[in-house]
Amino acid sequence: MDKNRIEPCLFIIFGGTGDLNRRKLLPALYQLARRGLLDHCHILGVARSTEMTEDAFRALARDVVRSTEVDSGASGSWCDQCVHYRSIREGSEHVYLNLANEIEGLEKRYSLPGNRVFYLAMPPQSFVPTIEGIGRAGLNRSAGWTRIVIEKPFGDDLASSKKLNAQIHEFFDESQVYRIDHYLGKETVQNLLVFRFANPVFESVWNRDRIENVQITVAEELGVEKRAGYYDRTGALRDMVQNHLTQVLTLIAMEPPAAMDAESIRDEKEKVLRSLRPIQPEDVVFGQYAAGRMDGQPALAYRDEPGVAQDSNTETFVAMRLRIANWRWQGVPFYVRTGKRLPKRVSKIVVIFKIAPVAVFQPFGASCQPRSNALVMTIQPDEGFNLQFQVKAPGQPITLATQNLHFSYTEAFSRLADAYETLLLDILSGDQALFVRADWAEHSWALFDEMLKSRREVRPYAAGTWGPPEADQLLAKNGHAWFSL
Amino acid sequence: MDKNRIEPCLFIIFGGTGDLNRRKLLPALYQLARRGLLDHCHILGVARSTEMTEDAFRALARDVVRSTEVDSGASGSWCDQCVHYRSIREGSEHVYLNLANEIEGLEKRYSLPGNRVFYLAMPPQSFVPTIEGIGRAGLNRSAGWTRIVIEKPFGDDLASSKKLNAQIHEFFDESQVYRIDHYLGKETVQNLLVFRFANPVFESVWNRDRIENVQITVAEELGVEKRAGYYDRTGALRDMVQNHLTQVLTLIAMEPPAAMDAESIRDEKEKVLRSLRPIQPEDVVFGQYAAGRMDGQPALAYRDEPGVAQDSNTETFVAMRLRIANWRWQGVPFYVRTGKRLPKRVSKIVVIFKIAPVAVFQPFGASCQPRSNALVMTIQPDEGFNLQFQVKAPGQPITLATQNLHFSYTEAFSRLADAYETLLLDILSGDQALFVRADWAEHSWALFDEMLKSRREVRPYAAGTWGPPEADQLLAKNGHAWFSL
Repeated sequence: MDKNRIEPCLFIIFGGTGDLNRRKLLPALYQLARRGLLDHCHILGVARSTEMTEDAFRALARDVVRSTEVDSGASGSWCDQCVHYRSIREGSEHVYLNLANEIEGLEKRYSLPGNRVFYLAMPPQSFVPTIEGIGRAGLNRSAGWTRIVIEKPFGDDLASSKKLNAQIHEFFDESQVYRIDHYLGKETVQNLLVFRFANPVFESVWNRDRIENVQITVAEELGVEKRAGYYDRTGALRDMVQNHLTQVLTLIAMEPPAAMDAESIRDEKEKVLRSLRPIQPEDVVFGQYAAGRMDGQPALAYRDEPGVAQDSNTETFVAMRLRIANWRWQGVPFYVRTGKRLPKRVSKIVVIFKIAPVAVFQPFGASCQPRSNALVMTIQPDEGFNLQFQVKAPGQPITLATQNLHFSYTEAFSRLADAYETLLLDILSGDQALFVRADWAEHSWALFDEMLKSRREVRPYAAGTWGPPEADQLLAKNGHAWFSL
Repeated sequence: MDKNRIEPCLFIIFGGTGDLNRRKLLPALYQLARRGLLDHCHILGVARSTEMTEDAFRALARDVVRSTEVDSGASGSWCDQCVHYRSIREGSEHVYLNLANEIEGLEKRYSLPGNRVFYLAMPPQSFVPTIEGIGRAGLNRSAGWTRIVIEKPFGDDLASSKKLNAQIHEFFDESQVYRIDHYLGKETVQNLLVFRFANPVFESVWNRDRIENVQITVAEELGVEKRAGYYDRTGALRDMVQNHLTQVLTLIAMEPPAAMDAESIRDEKEKVLRSLRPIQPEDVVFGQYAAGRMDGQPALAYRDEPGVAQDSNTETFVAMRLRIANWRWQGVPFYVRTGKRLPKRVSKIVVIFKIAPVAVFQPFGASCQPRSNALVMTIQPDEGFNLQFQVKAPGQPITLATQNLHFSYTEAFSRLADAYETLLLDILSGDQALFVRADWAEHSWALFDEMLKSRREVRPYAAGTWGPPEADQLLAKNGHAWFSL
């Protein structure tokens, strides 16, 4: 498949006036257009607003695109020629039949062969009615291909995720469905497969014989901000662990795929989920931020944030020990953690290697105690790698110093594409590799289902710290510690 | 052993007025003094010059030390108080008895306990008469310890090296003998043991299962310069391969020692030599530089250099394939090469890892062909490490790019000690780990003895190139190529 040749198509965005479309989709689409990849593609914004006119929508698109730093000056004509708008009032089949007519009209006018993307950039409660509307109006099939894109959350527990998948599959084949986890569009995350399977020197040591433990951290500095309404119902487990962290974990742990195609890769990721042992209560620590200090400023407790109940039991922090019972990983704990109001915004994967079997340098003193090698893969903010290793410090007697072999993406390459640019290009070219398959979504919910049903005991941690002390004890039980980030 | 406590001693330098003493020994000794390590040590220069007075020698020492960038301003008083001079005329036992008296006099005056270093900073033909002189005068034993230091060459073939060792052992026990290969004092060379045995992630892949071949290059830009008289008798094999390159090879290939002490390390290095297969004529390429260009300037052919015979058959370049028949290395060629008038001055060890067993990225195109990981260890000029690996270049479709995880000694640490500073400190503290043991010297000569006896066919190469084409063919036979340096 040649991603530099996108077939002519219509890219239909439900929620066209919404935040996701403004912040991510329109800038990414314009970027692809600027690269000459969308020469025969048209964008159709769809929303409930009847006050919005096509001209007003094009003006909105122009503003959005111009406000990004990537505008080359040609954005105006692109918006005028390729961006369209139709208003819609959800709920009636009639409305979708009208939309079908509008779509066919546009396709006729621009000689498009009927290839269509339906992007549901809308709140999850609108997924099902929209999918049904599209389906019942016969828009799930066309003379070309038809693809449907949804954003997480894909349900909020096992039952709801199964139900959502079933509703999707009523009208769409899985090969038409693109579930977006934008983490998978980040260069470093995509690079995990290259790093592992194009570099035998690392793949050689990627197993229980050589690895002591693996740590995945997605830390946020921000608190709940203006999302209390959503977040207090959701919590960190649903918001981050079930999707982003588990995705990264399956990429780190998966076996080499038979081929680098979507099904082979997704089969291997799914296999990791099937090898994960049930998570025991003692494997999990929930936390909630209390008052503290961020960057020297006082920071509110979660329960004092606007919109959060004083007795909220929602977790803003999760740390977890996961165990993968397969030949490669048996006995190697995978520690994951995520939280709000942590000391810095950072997403890193740390692979801690086993120490040397004998400590030949130990007699030379304190600096020469055996230390682990650690491979640190940074997903944000500075995408890159550090391999921590021991060197002899200059001079005598022998002193060991821990140093890094380092590589930074931005030092090596210029601009990195936004994750959405990558993902939209994949949707347009029909590559599902970076998207969440139905079985993965259900299986990852299944992992946490028991936990979601039971009442969480949330441990307080001061805003600006790395979570409650129990998160450290979780590792200490195995003689491990969180790698200092 | 605590290297920061040097026992009071007298450091006697034969060849005190010579080049090595001026360039290396005095600056290194002063550096150690400045670091407070030689508080009760005195230096005694010994040479044949009767015109040299002690005052003149101290003035010479002051000049030498001041011309180094490390002079802290205290060098004058150190030279006056701790540096001494005696002239000597070699050849008569009487002379050495006089020297013994002088030494005892100095020791008495400065309350030294009889610890003595005899450093033979003189041409190899003077080694034996000096050693005999020292020995017959009873200077090989004292109330304290006595150590003798010699510089390479340790013979110029197997027979002469055996003879030299026998002559040394007539008066000195091997535990008293420090044979200097200054390469072993370089930080990166010393660090090879730390790199390998304090970093399990690398030691895990340090074997025939993971490594395709190993390449050791010591390249010089300079031609023969003013050393034609010496060099034309000697050639690159004797000058570089038998010592420096073979030392580095044994450090790269050795098994983990039982302990990090001199005997354990030297036992393992010796074991590598014993596992080396006899070198076949087809494993060796000799070269001699012809006229060419260096940095855009015309450069003379070796045979046109002043002092070199027009029909000289001396090799200025050697490339060699070595095979180590043991469990770790069977089937992994070790390629070594050295030469004068090569494109740059560089000493590097390159470990080429095996490519991935399957080429999963190959369908994505030319950039995605399987490539080897390579670990490049630079001994000079920029001491450090590069681990060449594949990353996903940003953007779609998948494109692989070769990048480096890199570490530089000088970026991480400030000034690196000169190799001599390291080695003199080791001599003073009685650590023989970095010195060449008698059996290693003989064994490494034995490796090349057949080759030294047979007439070399030297292949011409233009000055400023990487040696004759035969050196590339040597690797091409095995499907390998020299790593681009």
